[in-house]
Amino acid sequence: MKLQSESYGIVIHGGTEELSKAFIPQKLQIECLDAMSQALNEGYRVLNNGGTSLDATKKSIRILEDAPQFNAGKGAVFTHDGKNELDAAIMNGLTLEVGAVAGIKRIKNPIELAHLVLEISPYVLLSSDGAEKFAERNGIVLVDESYFYTDNRWSQLQRIQKRERDRARRKTDNKISVNENENENHGTVGAVALDIHGNLAAGTSSGGIVNRLCGRISDAAIIGAGTYANNNTCAVSTTGYGEYFIRGVSAYDLSAMLEYRSMPIGDAANLVVLEKLVKLGGSGGLIAIDNRGNTAMPFNTPGMYRGIKLSNGKANLDIWK
Amino acid sequence: MKLQSESYGIVIHGGTEELSKAFIPQKLQIECLDAMSQALNEGYRVLNNGGTSLDATKKSIRILEDAPQFNAGKGAVFTHDGKNELDAAIMNGLTLEVGAVAGIKRIKNPIELAHLVLEISPYVLLSSDGAEKFAERNGIVLVDESYFYTDNRWSQLQRIQKRERDRARRKTDNKISVNENENENHGTVGAVALDIHGNLAAGTSSGGIVNRLCGRISDAAIIGAGTYANNNTCAVSTTGYGEYFIRGVSAYDLSAMLEYRSMPIGDAANLVVLEKLVKLGGSGGLIAIDNRGNTAMPFNTPGMYRGIKLSNGKANLDIWK
Repeated sequence: MKLQSESYGIVIHGGTEELSKAFIPQKLQIECLDAMSQALNEGYRVLNNGGTSLDATKKSIRILEDAPQFNAGKGAVFTHDGKNELDAAIMNGLTLEVGAVAGIKRIKNPIELAHLVLEISPYVLLSSDGAEKFAERNGIVLVDESYFYTDNRWSQLQRIQKRERDRARRKTDNKISVNENENENHGTVGAVALDIHGNLAAGTSSGGIVNRLCGRISDAAIIGAGTYANNNTCAVSTTGYGEYFIRGVSAYDLSAMLEYRSMPIGDAANLVVLEKLVKLGGSGGLIAIDNRGNTAMPFNTPGMYRGIKLSNGKANLDIWK
Repeated sequence: MKLQSESYGIVIHGGTEELSKAFIPQKLQIECLDAMSQALNEGYRVLNNGGTSLDATKKSIRILEDAPQFNAGKGAVFTHDGKNELDAAIMNGLTLEVGAVAGIKRIKNPIELAHLVLEISPYVLLSSDGAEKFAERNGIVLVDESYFYTDNRWSQLQRIQKRERDRARRKTDNKISVNENENENHGTVGAVALDIHGNLAAGTSSGGIVNRLCGRISDAAIIGAGTYANNNTCAVSTTGYGEYFIRGVSAYDLSAMLEYRSMPIGDAANLVVLEKLVKLGGSGGLIAIDNRGNTAMPFNTPGMYRGIKLSNGKANLDIWK
């Protein structure tokens, strides 16, 4: 196989962390790092065997979706109505082909369904029942909604809704702002990769925001907001308050600054996360890799679950600044 | 009232037209021009009275949603399952606030609901049942799904599904590509405006693609793809095969070329529609107005239903090249 790229590699994230290190149990930190280590190594193995960035991205995200510590797939947070609604997207940087799903409730691995949309659907974004019908028709076995249940997430919803009721008793205005539950939101997962063929890919999968209104779609499903890949520039996956990434068209904005302003990926990523996002009032982070293997992982929160493994030997797993 | 902007004005569209002039009944052309004339004048009146671009945009789109000739609101095309599923988005260029709804079935004016999401929801994109629950809780009266029925659209669905069945009898592969129904798709509506306060806004509303899989979300609901506004650059609304606008992040791409490459809006709009979109294989058009009142309305189809009315006296309504 002809090697077209000098370097290749993968970067993953398991969401931002709004709390500081002292508030996260040591055991949970270790479990998260273990799952990320597996996701990183399996994704990298795909690349190292000459596989595509699209397959590596999907492989890593699948593993993170199956890990109950993260807010995607098994372990997704609950909506206000006590449901799990999942969003995911994947993009091929070579062809600019895209697949995305939103508000699905019975698909074990949303990133797999997003990839199937990319591969065989004439559409790019399928939602709720329609997305599940598409899955069934194409041989994907639906799981019962109870598959996504975890004690931790259910307790979290009860805790937040009790807080909500307590507040309602104290005052008449019981409208919840997104930020009031901000410590409860870490966990979207994503991956970006550059393969030995020189092709980029990006993917993101999310369980959304805890206690949210059902039907709310997150940036994870929105190309240009939470996910973007283009061989001319870079591959990006974001995490944090999706509303701000949608308003900022943040993933594509990063790509546009590389393409139109010839900015280095580190500078452009910092501008998106540490300046533009902050100016809008948003918190979060992103991972990105450009078409020469340069990477960036900025975040404006106390932590971001993240890992990197490149063919030049660079490898790291971390949560904190 | 202090006048901050030398010029102001509004541009609207009622979708692209894939057929050439000879194939569209004269009566229908006149009906479309009449509805557009009303939408344009009412939107302009808002601006002329010192109102906001957001209100002008909403006003014009509401009128086009109520006109059964266009594929938005009353007159929306049917999905494969014989349903009407509507998408809409609106964006405030001053605050970068956004409201969008997708896959809704019982809201008479989707653009009104999108605006309500912008105004009072902590989220930016609400879909299907959740969006309708949000509407009900906030006093919007739901209409029966039958409100959206029109004989023309129903006949269209029957015609296309007969063609589908005929094809299925002839060969085993009956997968429908988007393009096979390409002559049946005109009609998304949108508006962009610059007000006397110097603020931009953009909005889009769509009934989607005829005979599509239910649950497919169009670019009309996606900020950065079908709709974008930013006082630093321009306001944009697109129309055509939404899948290509999502993959190209086309509305934001136009804004990015103004911001990062200092391109004139006409050149940037032509690049998006006549080069980038074509390269991806897509057809369609867009309307745009920049923060000094310069406008662009490129399309790569035989026609685009469009209108413009500016305070400098420029005014036009047209369908064909």
